[in-house]
Order: sequence, then C-alpha cells, then structure tokens
Amino acid sequence: MPLLAGQSPADQGEPGTARRPRVGHIDFLNCLPLFWGLARTGHLFDFDLRRESPERLSDALVAGELDIGPISVMEYLRNAEDLVVLPDIAVGADGSVMSCLLLSQLPLEELDGKPLACTTTSRTSVRLAELLLSDSIGVRPEYFSCPPDLPTMMAGAPAAVVIGDAALRASLLDAGTFGYEIHDLGQMWREWTGLPFVFAVFAARRSFLEAKPELVHEVHEGFLASRKLFLDEIDEVCAKAARWEAFDAQTLKGYYLSALDFSLGERQLAGIREFASRVGGVEAGFSPDVRIHLLETGHAA
Amino acid sequence: MPLLAGQSPADQGEPGTARRPRVGHIDFLNCLPLFWGLARTGHLFDFDLRRESPERLSDALVAGELDIGPISVMEYLRNAEDLVVLPDIAVGADGSVMSCLLLSQLPLEELDGKPLACTTTSRTSVRLAELLLSDSIGVRPEYFSCPPDLPTMMAGAPAAVVIGDAALRASLLDAGTFGYEIHDLGQMWREWTGLPFVFAVFAARRSFLEAKPELVHEVHEGFLASRKLFLDEIDEVCAKAARWEAFDAQTLKGYYLSALDFSLGERQLAGIREFASRVGGVEAGFSPDVRIHLLETGHAA
Repeated sequence: MPLLAGQSPADQGEPGTARRPRVGHIDFLNCLPLFWGLARTGHLFDFDLRRESPERLSDALVAGELDIGPISVMEYLRNAEDLVVLPDIAVGADGSVMSCLLLSQLPLEELDGKPLACTTTSRTSVRLAELLLSDSIGVRPEYFSCPPDLPTMMAGAPAAVVIGDAALRASLLDAGTFGYEIHDLGQMWREWTGLPFVFAVFAARRSFLEAKPELVHEVHEGFLASRKLFLDEIDEVCAKAARWEAFDAQTLKGYYLSALDFSLGERQLAGIREFASRVGGVEAGFSPDVRIHLLETGHAA
Repeated sequence: MPLLAGQSPADQGEPGTARRPRVGHIDFLNCLPLFWGLARTGHLFDFDLRRESPERLSDALVAGELDIGPISVMEYLRNAEDLVVLPDIAVGADGSVMSCLLLSQLPLEELDGKPLACTTTSRTSVRLAELLLSDSIGVRPEYFSCPPDLPTMMAGAPAAVVIGDAALRASLLDAGTFGYEIHDLGQMWREWTGLPFVFAVFAARRSFLEAKPELVHEVHEGFLASRKLFLDEIDEVCAKAARWEAFDAQTLKGYYLSALDFSLGERQLAGIREFASRVGGVEAGFSPDVRIHLLETGHAA
C-alpha cells in the first residue's frame, strides 16, 4: 500500500494490481497548498507520494525515478524534450515572492568582485540572482555555495541568496534585526521584465504520458482540485500551520495569496521563455529558444 | 514544515515554533483507515508522521525517537512501564483476522519437530502461533526466520506464519491454489480463549505525556475522529484502494468491517492480559501480570 513511500512498494508488477503514479512533493511552505488539498480530497491515496528536497526531486524526475513532480525551471529547461509541463499550475511570483531573497550588507552596486554566499538548495534562484546582478545591476560577484544558515552566510560574505522557509523567516523576522538590505528576486525580475517569474513547474515524463495518459490527466486534475480546496479552506490551513511555524496565520495567508503565484498561464509561460532567452546557451545546457511542451488538456492553458 | 518526515525537521527548537508530535504510521492495509481519516480531517498536518515497518516503529517508540505510535503487543508488554496506551483504538481481531495466518502442508498435529518458516516482520504473531501450537495443539515445531515470500517459505518448510498484506493475499488468492491448510491465528485464539486478540496498540511515551499531555489527547482524539470518518466513507476508500491493490472493494470492506477490530475496550484489554499471562516470564521480558497503563480520558475505556 504505497501511500507515502520513501522505498519502493513491494507490490509493483504484482498481477492484478496497477502501479500508483510516483509523484514528487516538496516539504516547503510553498507546497503546503497542494499537499493540503491532496490529503483533504483523498487524491493522496491514488499517488505514490515521494517527499524530497527540491533538487533531489528534480534529479529523480530527470532520472525516471519519478513519473510526475515539481522541477526547478533551470532543470526543466535542460530536459524539456523528455518532459511535458502540466498547465495552470506552478510555483512562481508575479512580483514580490518573499521566499527568494538577495540579502546584502552593501548596496548592490558595490558587490562587484565581492563574495556572494548561495544556498546550495536552489539552482534557479541562484541563476536568477546572477542574471539580475550582471545584466540589470551590472556587477559580477564571486558566487560560492554555503549551507542555508543566514548568520554563517553573512559572516563569510557581504551578501547572500536564500530561498524557501529559511528565506521567509529571514525576510519576516531576522533581516530587519540585523540591518541587511532585502532584495526580493521576484520583485526585481518583475520590475526589470514586467513579467512573473516561475521558480518551478510541475512536469510529467514524456514516456510516462505516452504509457499512461489517463493517469497524467488525473494527477493534473488532482493538483487543480487540490489548489481550489486549499483556497476555500485557507483560513483553516493558515491557522493550523501557524501553530507549528514561526509565522502567524495572517502572514502565511498573505504569503499564499499575495506573494506566491500558483498559476501557469500565458504570462507565466512568457516569463519562462524570457528567462530562457536570457540565460540559455551552451553553459546553461539549453537553447535560448527552447520549446516548452505543455500537456494538452482540451482547454486553453 | 515537517508533515511526513523521514529525516528530522529543520525547525526543531526554533524560537517561536512548537514541535509537532512525532507519530508512527504503518503502511499496511490494516492501517489505511487511520491514515485516510487523518488526511481527510486535516489532522495529518498537526503530526510529524513517520512511515516505517511495524518493527522499526516499535523500536523507535521504545527508543524515544517517536512520541506516539503503533507498537506490537509483545514490544508493548516489554516496555509497559515507559508507555501509556491510548484507549478505544488498536489493531486486533475478535475472531478471524485474515491477515495473520498459519499456512500448512500438513495437519497441525504433525508439525512437532518440523521446520516452521516465520516472516521476520512480526514478533507478536510468531509468539501467538508458537503459543497456540504448543499449548492448544500440543506440538513444538522448529521456528526459523524467513523473508515474507510464500513460495520460498513453503519450499523450505511444511508450514509458515505470514502476516500483513502478504498474508491477506495468501489467504484470499494463493493458498487455495496451492492446497495449503489455512489457519487463522485470530480465530484459533478466539476459539481457545473466547477473547479477541490485539496485535498492536497505540501508545504514547510516558515522558511525552508528562511534558505535553494536551498533545497526546489531541492525537488520540485525531485517531478516533479518523476512524469514524473512515467508517462513514468506507465505500469510497475501498473503491479507491481496490484500484491499486490485489483485492476488490467488497473484499476490502469485509476485511475492514468483519475481520479487523479497531477497538480497545474491556474485552480487548482482557485479551491482552490473557496473552501476557500465558507468555509472560523471564524469556518474554515481562511479567505474566504486567500492568497496562491506559491514558485517562475522562470517560471509561
């Protein structure tokens, strides 16, 4: 009964049993909406859900160890030919995102040649920060990887890129205390390009779609129903999460409703294409005009 | 955001955040009712749920790596002083259990001195089989551990103890085909003693109860609400599970409603005491009159 498997279920290939689709789940507050809805609707019981860090899920999807899951936009673009993007759902921001930040002890213009600490936990965010600093601000710091602990990062460098719950905590609780400048990467991108930024898409492996198209559509519909239920029950979810997290319910609600953008429509796709066109090339591992394959759903994305 | 952690959550000990209770979950069909309800009611989001095999969960609870969880009755009895049992909920059977079987190629009376293969995955069931064979049937086979694969077990021995989903499969699908005698350990116990048999209880660590009594009561109420919701929605759950398991919905419903007994009241407690009195002693690691500490809930268990 593989519901939330880390290991492989024993019943794979058993006669008379079908295999649940292996679906990735990220244990960040930004993915709570999806998980909440999947549990409450019961869709969870039709998935073999694998909880992992964003990088490991991205790698697992590329390696074929997952059938469907979230994947960072950089990794997606590098593997766009093997993947099909689920429309209408993503993790992004149309402006300030709150959980993807450049924190600096100096004005950004003074960071040229200076060390810049990056959490090892996000390829897309680091590439976005690098792009914004070089092409929008005009500085080229020396990037180095660092575990996501803000005081350590800021002891070794005048600036740092932090993401996820740690960034949210920094953004709301710590940064002001320490007097860092807070630059929101979602907002910087929006001001520079006029577009939303998509941090992660949900994609299915093309080979899985070909083998089990009905399951891919079902998982997609499960995600959409899940997001809808989350929005209906957002006050309850935020109250519940606030009990265990360092944020109050009102702050969490603001994060979900005002900062995060869970949609993937024309503007979000334009944001992905814009990012690809600016960072694509041999070094990035994909073409600037890489083609995005969307799952066909019978209605416009 | 530790919802379904394998690893430890990063936010433990963070100022301003409380720690979710670490609750064990077994990924067997017999625990699906609880998990279904926890997901559907949203209680899941207040637990740091750890999915593991029954033995590993038992060990984790004893070692203090879990706060609350299912524990096999043998392990519970050995650690009864450190644990408090949650009333009104358990995994047992008041008669035939279907998923805890003695399969034999010979009449049971002929098994004296013969090898008997036991799955390594259950201490309580093996001890129950041993007790029934020695004290009720009057034979003493030579027990040996074996991975839970029926053909392998039956190639090396004339009889085997199998439990869990594998036993359920054997009971419903395979055993008839191969012509084995099927003896249901729940039914044998009931015929011998007139009592239900409890395979696992849910217990909290005494130290956790002393530190966080309100959380233990909340988890307990979550379990009870969860079981209730499962019963309300049993047709939906069985239809969903049947899609992925080797059993049809009607069979699963029969297993949940007729075979399994999720209650823990006076008769079930009498069953545990009877078992303890028969197997207790130095070798077992607990006294035959070991005292069972029940969580006080303000109403009779």
